[in-house]
Amino acid sequence: MRISELTRRSGVPNATIKFYLREGLLPPGRATSATQAEYSEAHLRRLRLIRALIGIRGLSVNATREVLNAVSEHEADVHQVLGLVLGARPVDKDEEPGHEPGMSDVDALVERMGWQLSEHAPARSVIAETLETLRSLGADFSWRTLIPYAELAQQTAALDLDQLKNTDDSLEQAERAVLLTILLEPALLALRRMAQEHESAVRHGG
Amino acid sequence: MRISELTRRSGVPNATIKFYLREGLLPPGRATSATQAEYSEAHLRRLRLIRALIGIRGLSVNATREVLNAVSEHEADVHQVLGLVLGARPVDKDEEPGHEPGMSDVDALVERMGWQLSEHAPARSVIAETLETLRSLGADFSWRTLIPYAELAQQTAALDLDQLKNTDDSLEQAERAVLLTILLEPALLALRRMAQEHESAVRHGG
Repeated sequence: MRISELTRRSGVPNATIKFYLREGLLPPGRATSATQAEYSEAHLRRLRLIRALIGIRGLSVNATREVLNAVSEHEADVHQVLGLVLGARPVDKDEEPGHEPGMSDVDALVERMGWQLSEHAPARSVIAETLETLRSLGADFSWRTLIPYAELAQQTAALDLDQLKNTDDSLEQAERAVLLTILLEPALLALRRMAQEHESAVRHGG
Repeated sequence: MRISELTRRSGVPNATIKFYLREGLLPPGRATSATQAEYSEAHLRRLRLIRALIGIRGLSVNATREVLNAVSEHEADVHQVLGLVLGARPVDKDEEPGHEPGMSDVDALVERMGWQLSEHAPARSVIAETLETLRSLGADFSWRTLIPYAELAQQTAALDLDQLKNTDDSLEQAERAVLLTILLEPALLALRRMAQEHESAVRHGG
């Protein structure tokens, strides 16, 4: 297809596609004349993933290039690809895992849940920080309080992964995974607030 | 108690307490001399709620004053108080509900869940916007896809409300509700990401 069709089908403006080509995020098309090139379905899939990584996940062009290079190496391994695009695994695998306070509580939670997780998952620090903050504010809240929340998160993650089942293409799965993971975040928090209001009405007869 | 003890027990610095007193967020203590005053447990509870509203929910001083005034009027009604501090119900009840695109999808979801919700809940707009964004990006995702997510949100909200059961004091419940609702948000998203990584490992044998 021509660049105009790539624009139409991806929703990414022509000038932006040319920028991605110059930056090497998107490989060049097959030249058909001095000024024209043909692009494939593979270009379209890669372009959609770039849009998700830059526009939705908010990665820099350089970080996106690193992720895309790593994805290309592991394209056949869906788990690797999902880990890379969602940032569960940093691209630089030699990085030391964090040793913040509260990390042993997170380890206890992960062990209790039986979760197979990389040492590096940035989500670990978020849990540690939250537990520290609640403790510093005097709230009676430990990693054990998080267990039922973690069980519900596991059911939510199963729904997320179900959404990716309709395609075998790992780039397409990666794009969908970024969209669903990042874009659903505010919606999931909103659903919790709505459900809190309902639950409060039921319990307190509001 | 003296202001020094109020500082120690609340963790709020002396100068900040004086600022809240000047701004009328905290009622004056009982004067015991020209320069000293005594404060009660009620001051401590109100101070903790102020800290949660300003420091955790990020409300302005004026917005906090409006919420506190409304809370004082309805102190006996836990559901009203929770709604007020969590912002599910705007302080100005005459405000018109939003009529953004996608709102009918949200109504359909709320009806399907059987949720008792105020017309004004800002969370409604968040759901409508998310559905619009996913649609605009070509994702095959409707309000029906959200139903199982909403069911899990309802179980999460029940856990949240359980955390408030240990106290009868509505100001203390309000403070705890703000802390748990807002501070747990990043942790719940982190749990989902960790669970996604685990689920992906299980399904794809990573």
